[in-house]
Parts: sequence; C-alpha cells; structure tokens
Amino acid sequence: MNNMPYSLSEIENMLPHILKRENIAHYKNGKVYIGNRSQYPFEKSFVACHHVEDVAVAIETMITQGVGPWVAAVHALAMRADQLKDNADIIAELEQAKTRLIQTRPTNTLIGYRLEDVLGHAVTAIENGKPPAQAILHRVTAIMDEMYALYARRAHYGAQLLEDGDGILTMCFAETSFILTCAFAKAQGKNIRVYVPETRPFLQGAKLTAPSLHEIGIDVRLITDGMPSALMAEGKIQKYMTAADLITLDGHVVNKVGTFHNAISAAYHNIPYYAFAWGCDFKKPDRDSIDIEYRTPCEIKKCLGHATSLDDIGAIYPAFDITPPELVDGVITRHGVLSPHDLKDGFEQ
Amino acid sequence: MNNMPYSLSEIENMLPHILKRENIAHYKNGKVYIGNRSQYPFEKSFVACHHVEDVAVAIETMITQGVGPWVAAVHALAMRADQLKDNADIIAELEQAKTRLIQTRPTNTLIGYRLEDVLGHAVTAIENGKPPAQAILHRVTAIMDEMYALYARRAHYGAQLLEDGDGILTMCFAETSFILTCAFAKAQGKNIRVYVPETRPFLQGAKLTAPSLHEIGIDVRLITDGMPSALMAEGKIQKYMTAADLITLDGHVVNKVGTFHNAISAAYHNIPYYAFAWGCDFKKPDRDSIDIEYRTPCEIKKCLGHATSLDDIGAIYPAFDITPPELVDGVITRHGVLSPHDLKDGFEQ
Repeated sequence: MNNMPYSLSEIENMLPHILKRENIAHYKNGKVYIGNRSQYPFEKSFVACHHVEDVAVAIETMITQGVGPWVAAVHALAMRADQLKDNADIIAELEQAKTRLIQTRPTNTLIGYRLEDVLGHAVTAIENGKPPAQAILHRVTAIMDEMYALYARRAHYGAQLLEDGDGILTMCFAETSFILTCAFAKAQGKNIRVYVPETRPFLQGAKLTAPSLHEIGIDVRLITDGMPSALMAEGKIQKYMTAADLITLDGHVVNKVGTFHNAISAAYHNIPYYAFAWGCDFKKPDRDSIDIEYRTPCEIKKCLGHATSLDDIGAIYPAFDITPPELVDGVITRHGVLSPHDLKDGFEQ
Repeated sequence: MNNMPYSLSEIENMLPHILKRENIAHYKNGKVYIGNRSQYPFEKSFVACHHVEDVAVAIETMITQGVGPWVAAVHALAMRADQLKDNADIIAELEQAKTRLIQTRPTNTLIGYRLEDVLGHAVTAIENGKPPAQAILHRVTAIMDEMYALYARRAHYGAQLLEDGDGILTMCFAETSFILTCAFAKAQGKNIRVYVPETRPFLQGAKLTAPSLHEIGIDVRLITDGMPSALMAEGKIQKYMTAADLITLDGHVVNKVGTFHNAISAAYHNIPYYAFAWGCDFKKPDRDSIDIEYRTPCEIKKCLGHATSLDDIGAIYPAFDITPPELVDGVITRHGVLSPHDLKDGFEQ
C-alpha cells in the first residue's frame, strides 16, 4: 500500500452515503440492516432483517446490488451464529443458512465464495470455544478493509490519469473505484466535471452515479444515453472511464450495454478510454468465451415502472456489450494502468 | 411522379393511424380536430377546437408535432374564414388570426409560410365572391397531395436501398418517409426488421416509431439508446436510416441527439447510413451556420413526468447533434439517393 496518502477511515469519509461500508449492510442489536438501494436516491433507508430468510428475500428482490449481496449474506450468517450460540447443531444450521443464501443469486459466485470463507472462521472459533458471530464479523472487517484498500489503489492510479479541467464521461455505476478516483482528483485540486449517461433501462447513472458524485461535491451533468457523441464533438469530454463486469485475458471489456457504444465514439474523437478491473477470470480467455446475458424485453418497455410503449411491441435487451482491446487505452488495476494487450502476465496477480 | 406504383389513396391506406392526413388535423362541422399525439400510442384521440385561440394553445402545448403545427394552423384559418363569412372586416380578421397562429412556435417558420400561402387563396376567393374557407381547404388538399407524393418518392428510393432479410436501425421518429419506406419494402416481399431506439428524453421511438411500424405489420424491436453498437457487433443491423431536421449544403446532417452517436458506430461496423432530406436551406451552407438548440435540463431528469434523479443534480440537453458528411452514405431526396458531398448542385431542386 505504498504511496497511498489516505487511511481507510479518511477514505470512508470521502465516500458518498451509498458506498460507505455500514450503509451497504451491517449487523446491530441482533438484526441485519441492508441499505435499500431500490429507493435511492429518493430515500436513504434500510431494510431490517431478523432472520436469514429475510436477508435472502431482500437479496432476491434487488434491495441491494454490486457488492451488496455478499456483504448482506455474510452479515446474515453472523446473525444466525448469534441466534444459535448455545445450539449443539450450530455448524449444520450455519451450513443450511449458507445454502439458502447462495440460492438467492445463482450466477453471483462471490456470495458462495465469501460465505465459505467466513464460515471457516466461524467453525474454527466454535472448535476453540470462542463466539462464532464475532469471528465472522472480524473476518468480514478484514475482507472489507482489503477491498477498500484495493479500491483506493485503483482510484490512486485513476486520479493520476485525470487533469485539471477534464470533462469525464462514464457509464452506469462504476462504484467505489470511480467515485473515489473523482474524490482523489478533487482533493488534488483538479477541477473536473463528470458527464453521466442515465443508463436505461434501470437508470443507474441517474439514480446512483449522479447523486453519489453530487453528494461529494463533484460537478455533474446528467445526460441521456444518446448524447455522448454530441458532447465529444463540442470538446466537452477529455476522458472516458467505466467499470468492467469482466475483462477477458486478451483485453475485451464486458460492461453494461452502452459502454461499447460510447467507446467507439471516444476512439473516433481521440478520447482515451480506461476501464477499472476488479478481478480476472482465467476461464475467460477471449471474446468467444463470453455469454452475453439477454434479460426480459419487458424491462425495455418500462421506465420507473411506467409503460413507455404498447404491450405487444417487440423488444430486445442485451444487458452487456463487449468493447474490443483496440478501443481500450488502459485497464486500471491495483498494479497501475496496464495495456489491454498486455494483461496475461500482469493482470491482477 | 414516374415509376410510382401507388396512388395517393393507396399510400394513405398503407400508413399507420398517426400519419394518415385526417388524423394529423382536419376541419369538420365548424370545428378543427387535432390528432392528440401527446397521449399516443396509449390513446388515439382528438382535441376539438372551436376557436383560433384553442388551436393556438393546442400547438403551444405540444398536442401535435412534426408537420402537425402548420396543418392545424391552416385548418384554424379555414374555421375562422367560415365564422367570418358575412363580415366586412374578414381579411383584417384573418390577418389577426394568422399573427396569433405564427406566434405559437417562433422557430417553426413553415407555419407562417403555409398560412401566408392559404391566406392568399382566401383573399382571391373573397375578391371573386367565393367562399374563402373552401378556397383554403382546397389549397390545403393540394399542398398535402404534393407533400404525400414527395414522401412516396423518397420512400420509393428508400425502399430500393433495403434488401430482404435486412435489420434496420433508425432513431427518433422519421415520420412518413421512413414508415412508407418500410411499407413499400414489405409490399415488395422483403422481410425486414426495424430496431428502434426509444429516444430519450421524449421517447419518440417508443411512443411513435415502434407503434407506427407495428401497426402496419413491420417486425419491430424496441431498444434503449445505448444498444445499437451491441446489436451491430452481433450482425443484426445492415442499414441505418433516419430523418434529418436539416442538411447543410456541404452534407452535415442535423437530427435528434443520438443520431450522430449511432452514425459513428455504423461507420465503425461498415454499415451504411442514409438520411431523408426534406428540404434545403440555402442559408445553411456548413457546420458553422448551425445553432444547436439547448433545451431545459429539467427534461433530462424526468421520464413520462416522473423524476429519475434528484432535483439539484446538474443536467445538459443538446436537442440535436450533427453528423458530418464522411459518415453519411446517402441523402434520400425526391430525385434519388445523392452523395452528401454532392448536394449543392442536385439538392432538392
């Protein structure tokens, strides 16, 4: 963590409400409180859960997203451990809770991975006659400390790419890495403005990114998803920066649909595009290994729950698109900004 | 009109509800009925107007758009002429009505041009002791006959560009020229599918284009404004075709914001882009002569009247964008498909 000018608590203070760790999910007085992203930014509320089943249903009904599902799930396991502390079958019961929580999002493999990890710490605590709930919570704190430290490392490299006076285009909600990048650039005295496409159909740009940046004092302009080229032509945008749901080993960036649409335009206008890398999946070597999720077309015909067109009109909803490496100027990793053509050796190791 | 296989009444039958001439506006039993586009496609209703002022307010409140404002205005003048038929001051009164109707949309110069034209016919009728209302309505019919014949000519050339099996991307609502192009292609036995971006913030794609095409039996897929590149990469799109609010003499296409964003992607994927030319403004020689209208940012923060973000978030709303001629493969005119680099001599003369 060399060259990191901020402590973890300083970083926590720089983050907007929705990204502060206790607002993702926390355990208090026997209940798991999950930050309710479905009502954000119009309401900053929590869903209070008394039982593992409540947490599972909250995850299934999209109360939380991003890292939220696994953070809520591990806190549910801590709650269950507390409820079972004098029970002889505690380990079998915790296994059962884990199984239920994994079922909530079958494609989000991180939930199972994190639950397995914290359950191991609970079992060791039980074997040593120590309280398992506390062991889980300690382990969660350690995982989150590491996660926020990695966010800060990527944001440190991200902020170095930004210059005073830059207009920055993003897409969807690039979470803590991007929000912290903007916060660091601001703290360095750089004046930046972020153009945020609303990101239809779910409006993550309008509902999550724009309010998050605004809350921490970044100059924001909300736009529709068709406007980036118009703004680039006017010279308003100098950098394009997004998250990545997945980056293949050969440098293809998979992210929310619209990311590639903007990347083509950025290249046309000679504007560099940078993607934040979260992790690396060695089972995804190239474009052919990617399955694009097609979601229900009904979601395209609604906005905020209201119909935008007639029921019987056809629609199509590819949830992600793929930006090829020739349109990517840099992948922002914990090790610095790498070329998309040179990930195999240096990628997140 | 050589090579036109359809009569005007056959063309009228091929059009969807919203584009049939009597559904734009008509005069009947002393009232002007204006097709209410603000509720379309959820309701197919008319606003009935008893006075010139009612028509003016309907135009001002965006009950109609496209050619609707001038079509409503000339029918309002016919209604006023009927109301005034035994009045000695009829010409002065009609001049006053004209002035009020022109005020409704100061930037839409076609309203004044058409009103001047039909008023001239009314004055001649009055001088010859003939009913001025009928003279206006006859003139309106002649203008609209010519307009629909020109739509059909452009659509004839547009349909020739489409091939069996084509997927076609459009943007916003390219009105009769494009809808008729699809109808002609279908009548020629060509199987086509049209991908329609919803076109935020006003959703003209979702509310006008997709229902219009669906109504006349064209295979439609509604998409969000960020999806065109994802579909092009999958090989789903073979042609890109839009209207143009304005084409400069040197071939820059000004159209609804998002048009240029898609055109860059079409060029990247080697997909040809064609724009329908309506007319030509010799006062607009090049890009520098274009003023892009910036509309109120409030419209970006709403969808169907519902807030998508917080009130105090900044937003920006360029209503149009400019596609340079190097991204335009053809301009579809009444004379055929012209190169955007070769408009000065052949453009709409």
